[in-house]
Amino acid sequence: MLLFCLECSTVLHFYPTLHFINMHSYLQKSSCCLWFRIYMDYNATTPLDPEVIQAITDALHDAWGNPSSTYTAGVKAKAIISESRQNVAKMVGGKAEDIIFTSGGTEANNMVIYSAVEYFKRSCDAAEHNTDYSSGRPGLPHFVTSNVEHDSIKLVLEHLQREGMADVTFVPVSKVTGRVEVANVLSALRPNTCLVSIMLANNETGVIMPIKELFGTIRDKINQPPRRRILLHTDAAQALGKIKVEAPSLGVDYLTIVGHKFYAPRIGALYVNSEDKAPLYPMLFGGGQERNFRPGTENTPMIAGLGKLCVNNKLFFTPQHVFGKKLNFNNHFEGSEVLPNTCNVSILGPKLQGWKVLSRCECLLASVGAACHSDRGDRPSHILLNCGVPKSVAVNALRISVGRGTTQEDVDAVVEDLRKVVELLEQMD
Amino acid sequence: MLLFCLECSTVLHFYPTLHFINMHSYLQKSSCCLWFRIYMDYNATTPLDPEVIQAITDALHDAWGNPSSTYTAGVKAKAIISESRQNVAKMVGGKAEDIIFTSGGTEANNMVIYSAVEYFKRSCDAAEHNTDYSSGRPGLPHFVTSNVEHDSIKLVLEHLQREGMADVTFVPVSKVTGRVEVANVLSALRPNTCLVSIMLANNETGVIMPIKELFGTIRDKINQPPRRRILLHTDAAQALGKIKVEAPSLGVDYLTIVGHKFYAPRIGALYVNSEDKAPLYPMLFGGGQERNFRPGTENTPMIAGLGKLCVNNKLFFTPQHVFGKKLNFNNHFEGSEVLPNTCNVSILGPKLQGWKVLSRCECLLASVGAACHSDRGDRPSHILLNCGVPKSVAVNALRISVGRGTTQEDVDAVVEDLRKVVELLEQMD
Repeated sequence: MLLFCLECSTVLHFYPTLHFINMHSYLQKSSCCLWFRIYMDYNATTPLDPEVIQAITDALHDAWGNPSSTYTAGVKAKAIISESRQNVAKMVGGKAEDIIFTSGGTEANNMVIYSAVEYFKRSCDAAEHNTDYSSGRPGLPHFVTSNVEHDSIKLVLEHLQREGMADVTFVPVSKVTGRVEVANVLSALRPNTCLVSIMLANNETGVIMPIKELFGTIRDKINQPPRRRILLHTDAAQALGKIKVEAPSLGVDYLTIVGHKFYAPRIGALYVNSEDKAPLYPMLFGGGQERNFRPGTENTPMIAGLGKLCVNNKLFFTPQHVFGKKLNFNNHFEGSEVLPNTCNVSILGPKLQGWKVLSRCECLLASVGAACHSDRGDRPSHILLNCGVPKSVAVNALRISVGRGTTQEDVDAVVEDLRKVVELLEQMD
Repeated sequence: MLLFCLECSTVLHFYPTLHFINMHSYLQKSSCCLWFRIYMDYNATTPLDPEVIQAITDALHDAWGNPSSTYTAGVKAKAIISESRQNVAKMVGGKAEDIIFTSGGTEANNMVIYSAVEYFKRSCDAAEHNTDYSSGRPGLPHFVTSNVEHDSIKLVLEHLQREGMADVTFVPVSKVTGRVEVANVLSALRPNTCLVSIMLANNETGVIMPIKELFGTIRDKINQPPRRRILLHTDAAQALGKIKVEAPSLGVDYLTIVGHKFYAPRIGALYVNSEDKAPLYPMLFGGGQERNFRPGTENTPMIAGLGKLCVNNKLFFTPQHVFGKKLNFNNHFEGSEVLPNTCNVSILGPKLQGWKVLSRCECLLASVGAACHSDRGDRPSHILLNCGVPKSVAVNALRISVGRGTTQEDVDAVVEDLRKVVELLEQMD
């Protein structure tokens, strides 16, 4: 159970040992903390695990030295970074040398696309590939991605396209499965395709994409000499900590890791498959840190926190028994697996827009979609629309994502909260 | 006095209230902490101020929400970021809207150069400027910088030059003053010059550059219509917290801020003069944070720490009374001001190379130059060579930079430490 005060946002309790009855007695003792909320927006960000906070605080005190300095304070910082690198590598089934720390997922995703452009420029004489074009300007690198990616992929590619620096195919996800289908991605490939970037799991629907099958096929059937290698990237921001992620068996060249989605801090890392010599070109130049791939004095405390790995529990959010047929699960697709923590649901009715329901809830904290689009909360999510959810249903969407602190009591309380709000809204003129 | 254990690097004491005698009695009580060092490498990085650690820890606990989320946890995080932005703006005499948070100084410096390239591409038809070239390829943006800049300026510009994307003039600093001279920078300007980037104070010598005079002249005499505007940047990483820095009176368009050089965390910011509409183009694309100039979920705790502003004390390191004429101050230049905390000194003698002296010191922790070059400690600093220090003197250089924790007792202990090491090394075969 994750409870925190509405006024001061103090976290009162994190782990699932406190029951509701105890909470109420706690409430009576507290002077400030009169209103509590139950957090179910773990896909937006997670609170930090107490062990992570401890690792960060320890590093702030004891590992403040410049990791490049050769005396103790520096050596200690360097050792912490090295240990964290090993832990992060282990989490994704890789080796320490596969991990480049970045400021976050946005930077990691941008870096992959930048690297693919550079690789294309350097590794091939584009003129050789001027035949066999189905469409697109010759000589430009071509990217294949889905139409439900995070903005840190989507907007980078749209920018390159707008500036005439790349061709991009946004493969639509199937409206039946909510996934990009392998055949559709394969048929989008061109001779000048330099990168396929598909997220491992969608942040709004939780739908898991067929990365292993897709990348396996590209590796085995398409990436054969003399054809130029198509680089393979998956953004695992939303999947890590929620499902098992094994970079080598997924067949990726690059995999994006984001700490604050799994109880770790606001920092990221990029897995770069060193065994397969996945090419990487730095976007930044400077003091040589991260083997020159990502210079800048290392953020030791945040890296220390990232090395403490945490995983979610597997509680489902299932309010069917209360709402019955009024409920539309926007992320239940035929034949598709979904992240165990993510529920995207619309309570059907003309007055039950997602933002309206959430604003009336007494304890539920959730969202209508990706946090970075929260300023457009009254508009339906383009992710859901792209998945085939009708507009009238999509505007009612609630993205409810639970986490390791969530208990069955939380779920019950939230369902009751929603029930009351729906009753109230339906009675209003 | 900043003492920390050589074995476990625990900081034993931070503020100047503990005297040496007390330290020795402390020592006898301690089981692990048998060896202590005195830290005098504040230009490499600073320990965090206790108030900064508190701010970070508080934010880790209470402001973990996604700043883009509209409920309390998000709103609180957003408020902390906003307060920090105001504090950072105030430190450099700017306004909140002038501040863009970045992952550090390296990113801020790279971003300025990237912006200048984009500005050049977009704002002018380069062909118009094909006359009047003294040298350089027409149509390319031209950069002016000094030959003693940090690698996060130097290497970016060298990269652009190597890739044929820009022309660069590295103006040599005067061997008399250790500064770039205004006249030399002005005479390096070309019709296609798009950016002048000169650091405010050098990291190895502490020499303060004539930014105000230089940028004032460019603004008043050269940046006049119809001439295309030359953008003006200073990297204030090493100056902030040590001398007063007022961005508007320096006449800059951009100013780089680095937290970990003034007791704040590993994060940075870029001051962008909004009143003068200094152009800024993002290097990264994503979720729209930092008004789209620098997307990525904000690192709230680190930003909170950056908002706690700290300044240095003004203690000088002056070991003349012990070494007399054996001492060469590598940063004493005619007519130049130097950061009050920075001493770059060589103890003259064929056996007294900087790295050798430091490796024998019992309590002094210092460096022979920039931390990011510490793997080349046995080679003389190119910064010192560029300032006219002879090679035989430069190999003996010690960069000793004191901080707010340093006391006169520390200085005395370090001088005695150096005296013993020098005596020992001189007696060796």
